[in-house]
Amino acid sequence: MKVLLTGSAGFVGSHLTERLLEEGHRVIGVDNYISGQRRNTELFSGHANFSFMEADVSRGIPAFADQPAGKLDWVLHFASPASPPHYQQNQIETLMVGAQGTQNALELARSQGASFMLASTSEVYGDPHVHPQPESYWGHVNPNGLRSCYDEAKRYAEAITFAYQRTYGLDTRVIRIFNTYGPRMRADDGRVVTNLVHQALRGEALTVYGDGSQTRSFQYVSDLVEGVVRLMDVSSPGSDLHGPVNLGNPDEYSVLEFATVIRELLGERLRIEFHPLPQDDPMQRRPDITRARALLSWEPGVPLREGLRRMINDLQAGPGLRDQVRGNHIAAGAD
Amino acid sequence: MKVLLTGSAGFVGSHLTERLLEEGHRVIGVDNYISGQRRNTELFSGHANFSFMEADVSRGIPAFADQPAGKLDWVLHFASPASPPHYQQNQIETLMVGAQGTQNALELARSQGASFMLASTSEVYGDPHVHPQPESYWGHVNPNGLRSCYDEAKRYAEAITFAYQRTYGLDTRVIRIFNTYGPRMRADDGRVVTNLVHQALRGEALTVYGDGSQTRSFQYVSDLVEGVVRLMDVSSPGSDLHGPVNLGNPDEYSVLEFATVIRELLGERLRIEFHPLPQDDPMQRRPDITRARALLSWEPGVPLREGLRRMINDLQAGPGLRDQVRGNHIAAGAD
Repeated sequence: MKVLLTGSAGFVGSHLTERLLEEGHRVIGVDNYISGQRRNTELFSGHANFSFMEADVSRGIPAFADQPAGKLDWVLHFASPASPPHYQQNQIETLMVGAQGTQNALELARSQGASFMLASTSEVYGDPHVHPQPESYWGHVNPNGLRSCYDEAKRYAEAITFAYQRTYGLDTRVIRIFNTYGPRMRADDGRVVTNLVHQALRGEALTVYGDGSQTRSFQYVSDLVEGVVRLMDVSSPGSDLHGPVNLGNPDEYSVLEFATVIRELLGERLRIEFHPLPQDDPMQRRPDITRARALLSWEPGVPLREGLRRMINDLQAGPGLRDQVRGNHIAAGAD
Repeated sequence: MKVLLTGSAGFVGSHLTERLLEEGHRVIGVDNYISGQRRNTELFSGHANFSFMEADVSRGIPAFADQPAGKLDWVLHFASPASPPHYQQNQIETLMVGAQGTQNALELARSQGASFMLASTSEVYGDPHVHPQPESYWGHVNPNGLRSCYDEAKRYAEAITFAYQRTYGLDTRVIRIFNTYGPRMRADDGRVVTNLVHQALRGEALTVYGDGSQTRSFQYVSDLVEGVVRLMDVSSPGSDLHGPVNLGNPDEYSVLEFATVIRELLGERLRIEFHPLPQDDPMQRRPDITRARALLSWEPGVPLREGLRRMINDLQAGPGLRDQVRGNHIAAGAD
């Protein structure tokens, strides 16, 4: 298959690229490096089935303007800053990649006769009043708070994806990605996994916001990628393939428990420091994955301690080994 | 003042244009007539302080591309299909005028050094779990249902308005308009006021969805316009002028009570017919106007029976008189 992937240089995008190439697909990556990393493109730069366009999907993908239909089987729209420090520094760009970016990707799929997948997020549930969250839950989101540039952009992205499905009969899929971690996350990602892992690796005190009783579910990145690939492959007759699908690990940890696991893995003597909760920080978030189980026979397989061990091993191996893609080593670029 | 108003040919836009002209302001109307009416532009076509551009704000306002700053004091972004039949026939355009349209209007305000007002909606509260709705309520909205093309577009519009305020310090205002009625509503508006008034005028049975126990609050259009003008004028030091302001009438009627009032005014013998509720139809909606009272010393002054009488008189007067703008009669155009 020929797959165009926006956000290919992001954390999730790079793992998805790797998996699609392993399966023998052709991947055209698109990224503007607003939060993606050049090293994630360079990882695949020697691969015969990989090509890359540096472009801002919010402004369009000019290379495809005049291409005849049939050059693509899938458009996967994974581009967006996703961590609070990144999207809050880029509020307008984050809003645009949810609106214009999604629409440009939808138009590309439409003109190519390709299928379309939107990477949406558990953030559409906001600070939920229903727990765990099934896809039918409408969410509890502040439409103009500090997180709204991301949350509302993704809700809009879902709405316009459904509008294209309804208006043009486009074959669309929507995944809602819950907290995901693994190798190649940016050290400055700003979310709890990278914060705590990097603090622990540096021997610093572990920062916990609030009293740490807020819960998160943590999904190892290979589990997410498996879910994406299965949703691309599924064609169950009579199933609603267009409805959103939660992809996340339902094993729930309080942030304080999570810090304790990190401490177990990396150093019993690390202190835990408590800081005030940021605005609209969700108190709990946990996927109901009934739909993914039924539709995709999918569930996460990597337990938290195992996933964290892999991530820490990767970080401790250093950049030379860290960026070794299974089977073909490519030197990491400096960025 | 020099005011650019998007959606000037809409129901609310036309009344706002009239009021601003009466106050001696210069008004530049913009509309693409996707749901606005040419007759609403023609109403003011003889007015020295009125000019009009037929343009789609979602594609930009080319006439202002190279204008030096200072040509405008205000950009009022009121363009959008607003009734369910119109926005559901134009799902993608409705999403675009909330995203690209709002951003183009914000960019125009920014480049002109003008203030900006977004006409948002009580639909951002969706099918609310809090009653009445204060501005602090986050709402309960289906992100991908049949109404999402409007609801999520407006939530996005709020989010990007706040992002421009935070990023560039733009002087922004956001109003959330609750159900509004009055002369110049489209007969095919599709919402309860026009449906029932026009059914009653035609001597037909009155259609009530569900059992009619869902409630609505109905604001006469001159009350809304008064609130808009006050919010443009206010400059209370220390007040939060950027936060959303509900503008609506807190007098709450069930749809069935409302049908009964129409029957009182127009014909005791009219039957009431019950039909199934459409998807995601909100069960109740009523503004908490504490903030508008405090910030603007504003509250609605036109009671429902009085407003309906004016609307019905206007409809019964026929198009010749109907389109008489106070003080200067202008013949109505055919459309």
